[in-house]
Amino acid sequence: MVRAGVQRRRRAGRLCPSRALQRRGPLRALQREARAGPYPGVIDVALTPADLRGADVAVVIDVLRASTTVTQALSAGYSRVLCTDTVERALGLRAPGRVLAGERCCVKPPGFDQGNSPLEAASRHGDELVLASTNGAPAIVAAAAHAPRVLLACLLNLGAVVGVLRDTDGDVTLVCSGTGGLVALEDVYVAGRIAATLSGERTDAALVAQAVARGFETALPALAASADAAALRAAGLEADIGYCARESELALVPRVVGASEGVAKVQAGAGVIGAAAVDGADTVEA
Amino acid sequence: MVRAGVQRRRRAGRLCPSRALQRRGPLRALQREARAGPYPGVIDVALTPADLRGADVAVVIDVLRASTTVTQALSAGYSRVLCTDTVERALGLRAPGRVLAGERCCVKPPGFDQGNSPLEAASRHGDELVLASTNGAPAIVAAAAHAPRVLLACLLNLGAVVGVLRDTDGDVTLVCSGTGGLVALEDVYVAGRIAATLSGERTDAALVAQAVARGFETALPALAASADAAALRAAGLEADIGYCARESELALVPRVVGASEGVAKVQAGAGVIGAAAVDGADTVEA
Repeated sequence: MVRAGVQRRRRAGRLCPSRALQRRGPLRALQREARAGPYPGVIDVALTPADLRGADVAVVIDVLRASTTVTQALSAGYSRVLCTDTVERALGLRAPGRVLAGERCCVKPPGFDQGNSPLEAASRHGDELVLASTNGAPAIVAAAAHAPRVLLACLLNLGAVVGVLRDTDGDVTLVCSGTGGLVALEDVYVAGRIAATLSGERTDAALVAQAVARGFETALPALAASADAAALRAAGLEADIGYCARESELALVPRVVGASEGVAKVQAGAGVIGAAAVDGADTVEA
Repeated sequence: MVRAGVQRRRRAGRLCPSRALQRRGPLRALQREARAGPYPGVIDVALTPADLRGADVAVVIDVLRASTTVTQALSAGYSRVLCTDTVERALGLRAPGRVLAGERCCVKPPGFDQGNSPLEAASRHGDELVLASTNGAPAIVAAAAHAPRVLLACLLNLGAVVGVLRDTDGDVTLVCSGTGGLVALEDVYVAGRIAATLSGERTDAALVAQAVARGFETALPALAASADAAALRAAGLEADIGYCARESELALVPRVVGASEGVAKVQAGAGVIGAAAVDGADTVEA
């Protein structure tokens, strides 16, 4: 189990030992040894990527729209998606068979083939999709530095993600990509929907996310109330909001198979994560 | 209006101009000029003190237990409360007429007169209370650096705080003190209760807090589910949780009248904040 987060918090001198142990520590290791089945690890939520702490599995959420677009693209038959943190890096990855998708302020940048829309990603036009995403890609790259296994979640693959996590052994951090370092309502909502289905101890951040999920009767109002949705509407992309609110239509969980500076390589994952699913040595070929 | 937060976010290069303006900017200034009544400013929530941005009024929440204890102490007749960020600083303020209250890991530190319990603060034993608080005091001091007016809120004075804020002109940030830099469920719940009553545009963080408030039928379950409540129960202080969950029993809003390094001087405020209510030159006498 990864303990870096607890160590960091203890060094900060703000958490009493009894409360740090309450979350992760020797007691949990003992509990784990006493169990035959999967270890119900700690369920945490990083409300923004800045809150990322060590975990066994990190699940990155950018429901409006990067994680939805990646899930849709892999379902459409793209062999992999290269998520980049800047438009420039995506342009540098231009090669035969690669389709460049992305946005700046919701709009397709010059030189790109399509926007960051799951509707556009539903039609395959090449072997690999290169996706320049402002918040999702950096969150994925950051998550890969904090957890040995990184998955992508949205509402389209909600059921599949929950299925994988229920069979997962260890601590889980649900990472909300947010917007420009600020919390994004829609990501917290999705994190809460996932957290509510899992067994295990919860941090307060996970309880916050679960309460947010309870605070909306359905997904669409939660997504539609967000600042990101307002920006999409202003850009004439309202249809994307409704599409991103569709639930459990794709039985596919994107997983990170390699991440180098500013680029995360994502492929479709199997139903259950195996040790072979993550290849840290896998590199992105420019 | 304070614009430091938006400027900082724009410098970070992550927010598109249209979305930054959507929150605070020239458009809002024009809207304000067109109105005769109070300006319905932006309602923001700092989920932890690290999220603090500029605002006209900052409202610091540490419902378990510092902001509750300060409110109770001022209601009991203490002329002021000196909130300190360390036990050592509180010990250095020892003087005739001063009562030292505080906690480390929920327990009264050596050399102190009482713990950080609102129940203990309900009986006055001197003229000033010195309160050594791990999370609340640093949050108050930090808030004073970001806003010209700083108030303290809890559930005991919920109605009074809402009354003051409804008559307030400008942007409001509700500051959740959290625990050791991590989000605290109970503070987000109280922030959401307050935000839900105010007019004005909301950030996503405010919408998150409001959804959390909707996610619980009453206050006690929200407080009791938190990690801080678990720590209080473990320390045999469960009675404090129920006391801190009592709503709108005190018509008093603590306000910061001076803050220097590590110490915030807090007094009972009037119903409406006036320009004279904040005296930045006011210093804490050791």
